[in-house]
Amino acid sequence: MSCVFCRIVAREIPASILYEDDHVVGFRDVNPVAPVHILVVPKVHVPRVDAPEVCELKLGDHIFRAIGDITRREGLQEGGFRVVSNAGKGGGQTVDHLHFHILAGRSLAWPPG
Amino acid sequence: MSCVFCRIVAREIPASILYEDDHVVGFRDVNPVAPVHILVVPKVHVPRVDAPEVCELKLGDHIFRAIGDITRREGLQEGGFRVVSNAGKGGGQTVDHLHFHILAGRSLAWPPG
Repeated sequence: MSCVFCRIVAREIPASILYEDDHVVGFRDVNPVAPVHILVVPKVHVPRVDAPEVCELKLGDHIFRAIGDITRREGLQEGGFRVVSNAGKGGGQTVDHLHFHILAGRSLAWPPG
Repeated sequence: MSCVFCRIVAREIPASILYEDDHVVGFRDVNPVAPVHILVVPKVHVPRVDAPEVCELKLGDHIFRAIGDITRREGLQEGGFRVVSNAGKGGGQTVDHLHFHILAGRSLAWPPG
């Protein structure tokens, strides 16, 4: 198992995990680009947001539920936050396991990259 | 009905609509920040990604399915793309109706804002 996010989910490599449910794990990005930078990943290995398995496994529901729970627990909802997912190298994806970035704690410029 | 996205969904104001299913509409952003800049919105008015209705109405599934369909139809999957949703003013949200931006067609820098 070489996928770094699969290994974090399996607790084979350490991470600052702050959320877990049956389907999703949330942990802090080791290369944060904002004061709050959290990654939300499905436990199952799915490559990216447009993969067929995303619909088959209803990952949208699980991920949005986790984003709601995490941002509530972390106190991010009043100040606001941004969620981002990159698909493919051209989108800026660096780990081929579906993940959403949650960014907060500073002014977030537009355009988003 | 003052929400601009509700009015686009209802065809009360014009938009370049390129996708519609029972739950979601996709149309081109009138202020594009990339060669391809598409907005994906639920037909129902829900303020943002962390709203309770998002889970209750299973909008995550509907939105991810639409993102998959739109990026396939528009030929964005090979080149890659980025999806972004802002929650609250601090996240950069300017229309209080949940929407995901799909950005593609140019190099997308990191951090995303």
